[in-house]
Amino acid sequence: MLGFASKKWNPSEKHVYITGGSSGLGLSLAHILAQKGAHISIVARNQKKLDEALESIEANYERFCITVTLTFIQKLRVSSSQIFNVYSHALDSGKASAEALELVCKAHGGEAPDAVFACAGSSKPMFFVEMDECDLTDGMTNGYWIQAWTAWKMAKEHKKQAKIVLVSSTLGYMSFVGWGSYSPAKHALRGLADTLHSELMLYDIDVHIYFPATMFTPGYDEENKTKPEIVRRIESTDEGQTADQAAQALYKGVVNGHTHITGDLITALFSASTRGAVRRHNWLLEGLYDFIAYVATPIWRSSVDRQVVAHREQHQRYLTDKGFFS
Amino acid sequence: MLGFASKKWNPSEKHVYITGGSSGLGLSLAHILAQKGAHISIVARNQKKLDEALESIEANYERFCITVTLTFIQKLRVSSSQIFNVYSHALDSGKASAEALELVCKAHGGEAPDAVFACAGSSKPMFFVEMDECDLTDGMTNGYWIQAWTAWKMAKEHKKQAKIVLVSSTLGYMSFVGWGSYSPAKHALRGLADTLHSELMLYDIDVHIYFPATMFTPGYDEENKTKPEIVRRIESTDEGQTADQAAQALYKGVVNGHTHITGDLITALFSASTRGAVRRHNWLLEGLYDFIAYVATPIWRSSVDRQVVAHREQHQRYLTDKGFFS
Repeated sequence: MLGFASKKWNPSEKHVYITGGSSGLGLSLAHILAQKGAHISIVARNQKKLDEALESIEANYERFCITVTLTFIQKLRVSSSQIFNVYSHALDSGKASAEALELVCKAHGGEAPDAVFACAGSSKPMFFVEMDECDLTDGMTNGYWIQAWTAWKMAKEHKKQAKIVLVSSTLGYMSFVGWGSYSPAKHALRGLADTLHSELMLYDIDVHIYFPATMFTPGYDEENKTKPEIVRRIESTDEGQTADQAAQALYKGVVNGHTHITGDLITALFSASTRGAVRRHNWLLEGLYDFIAYVATPIWRSSVDRQVVAHREQHQRYLTDKGFFS
Repeated sequence: MLGFASKKWNPSEKHVYITGGSSGLGLSLAHILAQKGAHISIVARNQKKLDEALESIEANYERFCITVTLTFIQKLRVSSSQIFNVYSHALDSGKASAEALELVCKAHGGEAPDAVFACAGSSKPMFFVEMDECDLTDGMTNGYWIQAWTAWKMAKEHKKQAKIVLVSSTLGYMSFVGWGSYSPAKHALRGLADTLHSELMLYDIDVHIYFPATMFTPGYDEENKTKPEIVRRIESTDEGQTADQAAQALYKGVVNGHTHITGDLITALFSASTRGAVRRHNWLLEGLYDFIAYVATPIWRSSVDRQVVAHREQHQRYLTDKGFFS
């Protein structure tokens, strides 16, 4: 086991494919990987955002360091041979993801990338009874398939020592009111990653999965548009991270060969207490976290349950006002 | 917390809707519930199997008790007022599941059932790289949506003190080679159950989820048709249960108000070590299981990983013979 953990990944001169890399976590990750000397291919939908993303990677990059109230210029590219490409393409079906991967390979002589970070995805929290059939299937598409299809096509490439990195969520470890279309998809990603971590050993392909907590990204602003108030209230204890902080944690986890990667204490506690048969990296720390979670999660659970039950009457009025019962 | 655990569920004179109840776990469960005085509605696809199922519930039922090599006759119905109905209907879309639930309600004056046990589902283990797009989407439909749609329509019924019971699998807690289309779906069901357990408190609806291990059912025979040899080998340590044993464990768990239900020691260990924020029922036992799992699962994991890596060459030959690389 120690043998696995000691292999550090070095992205220098590796070709890294990032889905959803035009903003948020994916873009922050692209910045980190550019600085480490990787070739980068990004696939996302919005061409304008893609152009801006490419510019932010390619050009000298302004980084605002708030704590010291200084603005300094940081050059991301470390070598003139680094190739940075962006492509506007859908990823929401097997066919679309296959075409996207083909585009990405083409610029590298048809060769599959050395690593794919599947950062694409979105969420739409709302009450389960208010969802229509599309809300539920879209939730699975945007939370699961948009990454699963890319993993599927990458696996078929049989590229030795390649890495497939999926991005789940704290809500892939636990869940509560409001996440009926999202949490199942993020749990499914965990199931896929745990399967592939085992199965793709057949091809010497490594699989990682990241469980970020709240990230202050464009996607977060989007989900807040539909988020019920009770969900906001329950989440108010979650401090959240910037996309840069989340990307640093993801990068560090992949470099160190961690199978399940977390970037904040709360998620680390849920990870330790839902580890199951996942390969472990720090027995002592995970044992300690598991113990803390054993005591702490029931307190959290009770508090959430109480909030939900206390919300019953107000929720009943809300549904009545929306004509749910008429 | 203790308050919740002490409420025992009594199915007598309750209307229980069982999906996939024409064979396997669902049928065994129907037999148990008939003996407890419940009204039973079953939805499945095959009319012949449904007729046989109804006959086995309605008529005097022959039960073969192998241990004492005796055959005795057991009457399942305990009251002449019990209503047993079967319906052949699809459940693989929101629309189909809505229609099925409507049929089930109709025979009871339009009233929603008091409990639904979503036992419908199937699995198709195979190598991930050999799956086509349909294998993956069918896996999600038959492992997740076929139950999720029923839960969704039941939630919309807003029936107080109703129960929604989902059926996942040991593979909803962990996974390994071969289960790339099934394990994600069974993980997704856990995500859905954990969400709804919290959210449906708003309507006083209780949610349970069962994680059965290998069950010797018609579904098991079906999955064995496509199961790769390496998967069989890894699973060979799993003793398996009859559908009757599995149904007893499920029934007992629901009666006792357990949120996550397991019916065998191995799954109980995985459950304890992936419990996360799930409400607990036996702190001492779950703590002990968690400790055992902390030591035992890494040994299991290493053994499985070794088997997969050792299978590399043989697998490469298998894929070559099947023309995968040509």
